[in-house]
Amino acid sequence: MINAAGREIPTSIQGYKNIIPYASPFATHPVADARKAGPKLKAIYPGTNKLLQSIEEAIEASGLRDGMTISFHHALRNGDYVMNAVIKAIAQKGIRGLTLAPSSFLDTNDELIPYFQQGVLVSAQTSGLRNKLGQFLTTNKIGTPTILRTHGGRVRAIESGELKIDVAFIAAPACDTYGNINGVDGPAACGSMGYAMVDARMADTVVAITDNLVDHPICPVSIPQHQVDFIVKIDCIGDPKGISTGALRLTSNPRDLQIAKLAAKVIERGGYFKEGFGMQLGAGAASVATGKYLRDVMIRDKVAASFAIGGIVGPFCDLLDEGLIRTLFDVQSFDARTIQSIRDNPRHQEYDCTFYANPWNKGPMVNKLDYVVLGATEVDVNFNVNVMTDSNGIMMGALGGHPDASAGAKCTIIVAPLLRGRLPMVTDAVQTISTPGETVDVIVTDRGVAINPKRSDLIENLKGSGLPLMTIEQLRDMAYELGGKPEPLKISDEIVAVVEYRDGTVLDVVKRPLL
Amino acid sequence: MINAAGREIPTSIQGYKNIIPYASPFATHPVADARKAGPKLKAIYPGTNKLLQSIEEAIEASGLRDGMTISFHHALRNGDYVMNAVIKAIAQKGIRGLTLAPSSFLDTNDELIPYFQQGVLVSAQTSGLRNKLGQFLTTNKIGTPTILRTHGGRVRAIESGELKIDVAFIAAPACDTYGNINGVDGPAACGSMGYAMVDARMADTVVAITDNLVDHPICPVSIPQHQVDFIVKIDCIGDPKGISTGALRLTSNPRDLQIAKLAAKVIERGGYFKEGFGMQLGAGAASVATGKYLRDVMIRDKVAASFAIGGIVGPFCDLLDEGLIRTLFDVQSFDARTIQSIRDNPRHQEYDCTFYANPWNKGPMVNKLDYVVLGATEVDVNFNVNVMTDSNGIMMGALGGHPDASAGAKCTIIVAPLLRGRLPMVTDAVQTISTPGETVDVIVTDRGVAINPKRSDLIENLKGSGLPLMTIEQLRDMAYELGGKPEPLKISDEIVAVVEYRDGTVLDVVKRPLL
Repeated sequence: MINAAGREIPTSIQGYKNIIPYASPFATHPVADARKAGPKLKAIYPGTNKLLQSIEEAIEASGLRDGMTISFHHALRNGDYVMNAVIKAIAQKGIRGLTLAPSSFLDTNDELIPYFQQGVLVSAQTSGLRNKLGQFLTTNKIGTPTILRTHGGRVRAIESGELKIDVAFIAAPACDTYGNINGVDGPAACGSMGYAMVDARMADTVVAITDNLVDHPICPVSIPQHQVDFIVKIDCIGDPKGISTGALRLTSNPRDLQIAKLAAKVIERGGYFKEGFGMQLGAGAASVATGKYLRDVMIRDKVAASFAIGGIVGPFCDLLDEGLIRTLFDVQSFDARTIQSIRDNPRHQEYDCTFYANPWNKGPMVNKLDYVVLGATEVDVNFNVNVMTDSNGIMMGALGGHPDASAGAKCTIIVAPLLRGRLPMVTDAVQTISTPGETVDVIVTDRGVAINPKRSDLIENLKGSGLPLMTIEQLRDMAYELGGKPEPLKISDEIVAVVEYRDGTVLDVVKRPLL
Repeated sequence: MINAAGREIPTSIQGYKNIIPYASPFATHPVADARKAGPKLKAIYPGTNKLLQSIEEAIEASGLRDGMTISFHHALRNGDYVMNAVIKAIAQKGIRGLTLAPSSFLDTNDELIPYFQQGVLVSAQTSGLRNKLGQFLTTNKIGTPTILRTHGGRVRAIESGELKIDVAFIAAPACDTYGNINGVDGPAACGSMGYAMVDARMADTVVAITDNLVDHPICPVSIPQHQVDFIVKIDCIGDPKGISTGALRLTSNPRDLQIAKLAAKVIERGGYFKEGFGMQLGAGAASVATGKYLRDVMIRDKVAASFAIGGIVGPFCDLLDEGLIRTLFDVQSFDARTIQSIRDNPRHQEYDCTFYANPWNKGPMVNKLDYVVLGATEVDVNFNVNVMTDSNGIMMGALGGHPDASAGAKCTIIVAPLLRGRLPMVTDAVQTISTPGETVDVIVTDRGVAINPKRSDLIENLKGSGLPLMTIEQLRDMAYELGGKPEPLKISDEIVAVVEYRDGTVLDVVKRPLL
């Protein structure tokens, strides 16, 4: 069958739930009278000691068995030591057949490949895949397709009971002796615990793994003791250098700066740039740089934002301090500046991922966005965006909050160079749809800006703005002229991953490329 | 049948669930493999307007129907205008047969009596009952017995699915236009929203009622927008004078001060008075005054508490500021000083009632108490405490967190005068058991101190302390000598209320007194 994004979707996929094809951004609702899932009810009485001596002991205590589902959070990014260490210990115990459902994978998780090969891990559910693990899961059949979910879609799956986490292992930058956790203290401080907060609340068993065990009770508390079963102290949960890998200095790349300047102009003139607007800027170079130009306009016009959301980066904290943003909601803190800010500034609020982006609650923050600026690996003439597969069809990106923010925002702006190397970034059809075109409003490239034709209001507002406006087809033609039209990829029929839209419908599938 | 507290419990009670008799404080566990209940899954998409024009409109939008269960929180105490106003509006709509399950009732809720008489309300579940409403529910048969639950027991009932809230109406001192709520801003600021946080998370439909509607988004957020369906702005949600009714100045009553001095000595010498101890003091005069004497000892001995919990009062905030308490966890803020402190001091942490006291999670704060000091209406020779019925057998008190803290604390100290007027407060058997004697360690009266004989460690520690130690029987004898042995109450066989222990077992029943 063909779904509403124009993709051919099989009627069933081995090892995947019953397929509902993607219909439109808000067409697919919770089943009538469905209730939120709940973890096992447990009682822990006074005197119970939650402290265990080792990861091995915690695995035993957790009751982990063959075939279960385990989770991790990715707030330590490439600095995380916990996921690899726990899975190594699980493998040594002879446990097999696990589904691994972290909030995302990063480069450092290449070490997991052998455990997929050995059958310790048989299935992955994630927002992102990178590097060799991405390549491995795109090119090797591991039995079940990888499920790719947005940040909001993952919470939806958890809260609706589709993704049931048996054991959550939570890397804890600070943890007290009764299990209260925060992310702001300790050598591996990561800032917001926004992803882990969901897992702690919903998993049947929760194991905190910390290198910074402190006296009870901690302050502030991000994850409360009453959600945590066991605590293990290890020497080191992560490398601060890797945690701040995302530490985003302002780019000096002139192409990125040009794109950012154009995107800031789209914001200024798009119709929503008013006192109290809400915004999200992605963590890519051009998105972050957009904030720099926007700041100038905000100061000039005396316009402050009521909030900013998304993964938070240092420049946003500066805007908060300057009074140009009233409050930040932070689900992931990308750099040291942000980690310091969420610790010290009460207007920098930690919140969890259901609050950020879950489409099936009574209103996530993405619903209140006026503008979001996000990157893309490629876009197409239907405004579809791909952030998931590269030019060889290999999974190397992350859905993240991209589709969530795009659906929620009044105006979604995609920033991308027209070409990367000699590869056109605006094409007839993206290889993989990660964000459907009907939720994308403006494509900003270094060579021109295209507005989704359904947004006649934006087209009207941006007339006379000095922006190099053109049709998306003109952008594509320019890209093809400069880079040449790319050859279609040779792809097998074998489905290696399912791209779920945030509502759990199937937006696209990833098939194994023929090498 | 006779339960483990020695009370005769019927094998079934009309209108009440299957009875499990009270066994012992930690004997009754969640059913194997039971899961936490969850509210209905709902999705609210961008552009949805949650603002309604009136309480009437909100009642309609909520889908409230005959026979449903509704809830309110009591953080505005006697200043609350919301519960009475909503129920009046419900009655005017002709809706009937509702179960009313607030976190507690206060004096101001006497206005609800007609709605019970008319059958708008047919059942009550609460922590406390006062005044004429307490009298009414003790002396009139309304069809189903009132269920009396501890603060922790109420959350247990909600989270285990025993108490399913269809619609929660939440008085919101500050609410933004998308439903984010806090209790620290606005004319009816009440401080912590600790009780309401549970209802917002667990009710199928949540209506915020505010007199302080502010721009989105609020900061800080105590109850998040994604839990709130509808918002109604009214002129006034409450009277600040009533909200701070509990405003607790230090008593000058010499008997209370004498009791407090003895209680402070018990703490000092009991064996747990060490750097980092945890404590709760009740909100009664003698309990609060205990803090005053304890402060002197803490300064003298350079001992600071790691935390204090419970309903928080101003003197605790002073101790926090002085560094004598490291952090406060606040489920209910009793006075203006406390409301200001929770707003401004990041070490004064808001937390919800599951975190405070729910026996069926992975560890509430009460589990970590070293000392709790609590009041009593009467105690008996088995150390049982009654805080629920008066000398006429009328319900006029609240279980509150009393049984929760008593179960959790290493040392539970009850403070009470030996006589009130001419009535002995230490008796052969309390009229109603609200806290079982096996969780009570020390009874402190103005005339003497009795230690539970099973606590040989405390008896040993308190030897030579200068405290007027005696047996509980000696205390009773002295009370009887001074006040005369009270005549047994004349009581009918008609059960008007069930006193649930925090684990949902039946600890006692309240029968209608014969007048």
